[in-house]
Amino acid sequence: MAPQKLKIGVAGLGRMGKRHALNFFEQVPRAELVAVSSPDPAERQWAQETLGESGVTVYENYDDLIRHEGLEAVCVASATAVHASQTIAAIAAGKHVLCEKPLATTPEVSQTVVDAAAKRPDLKVMCGFSRRFDESYRDAHAKVKAGLIGRPSVLRSQTCDVLDPSGFFVAYAEFSGGIFVDCSIHDIDLALWFFGEDGHGKVKSVSAVGITAVEPDLKKHNDRDNAVGLIEFSDGRIVHLYASRMMAAGQEDSTEIIGTKGKLSVNLLPTENLVRIYQPGGIRHELPQNYWGRFKNAFKQEAIEFSACCLDDVEVPVKLATAVAAVKIGAALQESMITGNKIWFDENGEKTTKARL
Amino acid sequence: MAPQKLKIGVAGLGRMGKRHALNFFEQVPRAELVAVSSPDPAERQWAQETLGESGVTVYENYDDLIRHEGLEAVCVASATAVHASQTIAAIAAGKHVLCEKPLATTPEVSQTVVDAAAKRPDLKVMCGFSRRFDESYRDAHAKVKAGLIGRPSVLRSQTCDVLDPSGFFVAYAEFSGGIFVDCSIHDIDLALWFFGEDGHGKVKSVSAVGITAVEPDLKKHNDRDNAVGLIEFSDGRIVHLYASRMMAAGQEDSTEIIGTKGKLSVNLLPTENLVRIYQPGGIRHELPQNYWGRFKNAFKQEAIEFSACCLDDVEVPVKLATAVAAVKIGAALQESMITGNKIWFDENGEKTTKARL
Amino acid sequence: MAPQKLKIGVAGLGRMGKRHALNFFEQVPRAELVAVSSPDPAERQWAQETLGESGVTVYENYDDLIRHEGLEAVCVASATAVHASQTIAAIAAGKHVLCEKPLATTPEVSQTVVDAAAKRPDLKVMCGFSRRFDESYRDAHAKVKAGLIGRPSVLRSQTCDVLDPSGFFVAYAEFSGGIFVDCSIHDIDLALWFFGEDGHGKVKSVSAVGITAVEPDLKKHNDRDNAVGLIEFSDGRIVHLYASRMMAAGQEDSTEIIGTKGKLSVNLLPTENLVRIYQPGGIRHELPQNYWGRFKNAFKQEAIEFSACCLDDVEVPVKLATAVAAVKIGAALQESMITGNKIWFDENGEKTTKARL
Amino acid sequence: MAPQKLKIGVAGLGRMGKRHALNFFEQVPRAELVAVSSPDPAERQWAQETLGESGVTVYENYDDLIRHEGLEAVCVASATAVHASQTIAAIAAGKHVLCEKPLATTPEVSQTVVDAAAKRPDLKVMCGFSRRFDESYRDAHAKVKAGLIGRPSVLRSQTCDVLDPSGFFVAYAEFSGGIFVDCSIHDIDLALWFFGEDGHGKVKSVSAVGITAVEPDLKKHNDRDNAVGLIEFSDGRIVHLYASRMMAAGQEDSTEIIGTKGKLSVNLLPTENLVRIYQPGGIRHELPQNYWGRFKNAFKQEAIEFSACCLDDVEVPVKLATAVAAVKIGAALQESMITGNKIWFDENGEKTTKARL
Repeated sequence: MAPQKLKIGVAGLGRMGKRHALNFFEQVPRAELVAVSSPDPAERQWAQETLGESGVTVYENYDDLIRHEGLEAVCVASATAVHASQTIAAIAAGKHVLCEKPLATTPEVSQTVVDAAAKRPDLKVMCGFSRRFDESYRDAHAKVKAGLIGRPSVLRSQTCDVLDPSGFFVAYAEFSGGIFVDCSIHDIDLALWFFGEDGHGKVKSVSAVGITAVEPDLKKHNDRDNAVGLIEFSDGRIVHLYASRMMAAGQEDSTEIIGTKGKLSVNLLPTENLVRIYQPGGIRHELPQNYWGRFKNAFKQEAIEFSACCLDDVEVPVKLATAVAAVKIGAALQESMITGNKIWFDENGEKTTKARL
Repeated sequence: MAPQKLKIGVAGLGRMGKRHALNFFEQVPRAELVAVSSPDPAERQWAQETLGESGVTVYENYDDLIRHEGLEAVCVASATAVHASQTIAAIAAGKHVLCEKPLATTPEVSQTVVDAAAKRPDLKVMCGFSRRFDESYRDAHAKVKAGLIGRPSVLRSQTCDVLDPSGFFVAYAEFSGGIFVDCSIHDIDLALWFFGEDGHGKVKSVSAVGITAVEPDLKKHNDRDNAVGLIEFSDGRIVHLYASRMMAAGQEDSTEIIGTKGKLSVNLLPTENLVRIYQPGGIRHELPQNYWGRFKNAFKQEAIEFSACCLDDVEVPVKLATAVAAVKIGAALQESMITGNKIWFDENGEKTTKARL
Repeated sequence: MAPQKLKIGVAGLGRMGKRHALNFFEQVPRAELVAVSSPDPAERQWAQETLGESGVTVYENYDDLIRHEGLEAVCVASATAVHASQTIAAIAAGKHVLCEKPLATTPEVSQTVVDAAAKRPDLKVMCGFSRRFDESYRDAHAKVKAGLIGRPSVLRSQTCDVLDPSGFFVAYAEFSGGIFVDCSIHDIDLALWFFGEDGHGKVKSVSAVGITAVEPDLKKHNDRDNAVGLIEFSDGRIVHLYASRMMAAGQEDSTEIIGTKGKLSVNLLPTENLVRIYQPGGIRHELPQNYWGRFKNAFKQEAIEFSACCLDDVEVPVKLATAVAAVKIGAALQESMITGNKIWFDENGEKTTKARL
Repeated sequence: MAPQKLKIGVAGLGRMGKRHALNFFEQVPRAELVAVSSPDPAERQWAQETLGESGVTVYENYDDLIRHEGLEAVCVASATAVHASQTIAAIAAGKHVLCEKPLATTPEVSQTVVDAAAKRPDLKVMCGFSRRFDESYRDAHAKVKAGLIGRPSVLRSQTCDVLDPSGFFVAYAEFSGGIFVDCSIHDIDLALWFFGEDGHGKVKSVSAVGITAVEPDLKKHNDRDNAVGLIEFSDGRIVHLYASRMMAAGQEDSTEIIGTKGKLSVNLLPTENLVRIYQPGGIRHELPQNYWGRFKNAFKQEAIEFSACCLDDVEVPVKLATAVAAVKIGAALQESMITGNKIWFDENGEKTTKARL
């Protein structure tokens, strides 16, 4: 008798949606992709040709997707603007949900997802912080937990995209929540993960500055193409972040965790593979050109583990509350960058104008 | 309608057999593992517990495996001593075969597999040189083919296992064919691949020396724990090889391809993942501890592509004749190391006592 | 006829003073070390034994040093607190001066050195920003100047000392000006150098946070053992800094210069030499244990070039005004870290409470 | 009173001679360059302009150089063909000698230098194996001696020059002794150093092959542009060597020392400095373009230590007998490469046609 498989649907078939759909279709032995949805005809055509012959139903409307017979889980990979509402609708329909990050561009809307999920403790609802499933980050986290570096005290992390001269990021910025919510959200999640997830209530201050070095038009969406930020926690830990849309060589997502007895770095010198090229001019290695090139195995692992959590009724490895905390910090950094003000939080996590020293 | 899947059986459930079985079971969407076989009760018990519930039949005898109803292909992952006979039996039964390397420990026996396969051009028969499916080696090969380094002229390659103080390798040496046939066979295959597979008829000479630095008992099986070898081709190309069972840090399988206009290296500085550890004493990174840690993705890719070749009736990417040529060179290196003689080949590929200059 | 040599004296024989003295004694063909001074008897004894036999005069008082007959130049390597006064006294006595960084711990005192130097344009007065003489930083600067990375827009730089559990840094902090003035001053100088030295009047804001992860007693001197800071320039460039006294593996002074068309990193993965050590646990390399290990060749080059500038009447390669600008920024970062306030500067470089957007 | 300085002369002002002359002129505090000689008018003119003003005498004839009044030591940096005779003449004149490698292109002629030196035990005579003075090789040697890697058993080493399309190496090959004597001599010396210098009498066999990948004309001088060789020692140790004139990226001189408990590598990934360049196409670092770029500090240290040995009457750090042993092995490898024969040595170090197993 064949083992039970999780019947899952994928909402949204853009860049990430296609990848999630193919992952659940081919890479997750315990999942069965039964349906997908997209409002975009070209995306639906791609799905029909790629998945349709194998029996995957292709919907135009998300509401039809979640009514698909036998559906047990949904992967929400649509535009950020509908992440929260689609997730809440799926919860209401009694489906497990894997939602792409961020839950929303504001902490308030993000919180509505947590509230909805709280009413259905029988369902698994997880925000897809893919780095949590990357083997290098996991190895680093296990080493920190084992005490290898003493108390982790400083975290430096960056999410830096390759320069895309097409102007894509300008249009994208209108709805992305800005570079700190869209990119640095991953680094913020790492900080919360490495510093203890309970720490997310303990942010003391954030400050940030940014520039538009290559895309001046980003300013009209209150965004920047290069941004640096600081986060201060009340338990004596600090974070510095860098996000960029301007990397020449490729995707550069690096992290350093510095403790009282040692340090770990992850991906300090990014590389596409194990080949080095020796030519006049020196020795060179290529880089992944986007986050998929860097994290495709993590996305696969995320899909495998989310499926297992649903089937085996096991707690998901990323707390939903952390996803809200990450958005809250990211949005505050974005605000700090745009207003020029340092943002303080009081002991209840509320924004305040008073410095806490 | 679900797509057709290749019904495959795996023979042998030792270290490699288990891995191949799990690969075809979980990682190859277009294959269905239907049966496995092993003469070992403990291995069969493992298979029953791991695969049996999902409907995989577990056989004691290989002959029963290849008679399994509907079986289309076999993966031969048993002891090297039976690679050839099991492959030939599968061919005789009309099955496609993926045979672990080497086909046999002598070129003569290896050739019997080629002869058998030649009579059944409808079947796919492939020797599993896993590195051909590794993304880094493939990237290097594509770059060479594109002319990036001019004419590839010198190849340095090593297959170096971690030190295993259990004495495993002494017992293993009795039937492995020796370190050049067991380990360097991969490097030899790489040389043939990078220098042009037609080149395998053009070996001019081989010479080798070896020592027993940590396992003196290897001498009783005419083997060594560290060996270096040279291969000279008649078209003006040379190879130097290193094989070892004595690495302290982990698996070190590195290759350099040096051309008239550039050079490529593959895995010159092996690493387990992207984490670096900063402690008193310096900065450190961990290594894969065995070839599986280094090549697991390549084995998966091998299984995926072999299955596709069978289903789609496409030529397999590794020529069977190359596998014989590799054994011939490896066995000659082993002979050179043991006898102390340089071994020459004439223009017909026959061993000769006369130097060719 | 032997070429003319610069007759130089070294003031201060502590850690840095000894090194400067030995440099001018042995490593600078065009300089002759004629005298040294130190208020410390043990240091004078060292000098007498090491240099005295070769005819170097050892003084207790700095005033005697600068009156040494025939003296042409002074290297001020005494405690930071007397850098400015000793430099000014040497200028008044008509000597060229190479002064260790920083000129002083406040911009106001630093400026008095510039004012004194301005009255004697015939003298060479240089603040010893050693990294300007490091071959890697110079190579990076030349590449930036040649346009290799487009417009340099973001600079990340860190000065991170090895953990010294002796408590040395607590006592040292009383007079050092704090971690941003003592350590980050180098990174700030790099920012001014790479972004254009005229840029030092264009600082828009600084903000910083810090912690005492290993040395809580630093708080009593208004200092921290780990600090991160941001600098914003009015011409659309940003800097992020990290300084630490807590590195486990060794000295980690790294810099990245990110431009609109590329990026350069300097010393991203510090290493003591070209040896790598393979042992169970992985592959490891050692690190320099202090800034001297990292920069000793730069200090030598600094001494050689300063001597040449004096002898050949050539402008020194580091502008004195830049040294004041660096102290101003460092002191503001230190203030921001301690007060919690973001510090703004108006268009005239004066501190202001008003945000500039 | 100024300390005593070694009065030294440099013979030969070609590539290496100029560098040695400048080293003794500027970089060795305890040496005084008093004279140089060269048969080449252009080289003498360079010397006159560069050194003459400082009182260095420039000779046409070597005999005049060694008769220079007060001369105590000679650095022989002339053409290899006269290394031995000039060294012997200097010894006869009672001078200490630092002779560039190799002593000669044959072991017989090399031995005449040892014999001459044996008659004057009061003189310091050293062959300049520069790598012995390189800080990375020294660190590796100290670690081996301290037992870090157990018993060193396998050594892999390469001396690989950048591709020089000018044809220089063809003309040079006429007198160089061939690629194994000219380049690999360094690697052979390293093997003797790391395996124990007494080991040089214990060579059991050598074998080598080579090609002319870019310079077919090398054949007329019995030389090759790429060569690989094996050395077998009777105490159970092996060496594999690679020498090349075809590197695209720069000088690649790497060494691995593999022991029963660990491994050390030196310069596995050569780099010019600490800068990395990020551009479309990847991350790149530049390489030294010749051995001087890689070893200039070692040459300086060699000059400093040789001078100190002469002044302080201390034994030189490189045994002269080892230099003969290195030439013997190098010449045998060259012979093996040209004749195609494996070369055996009997227990007395004499060449033999009989295999020793």
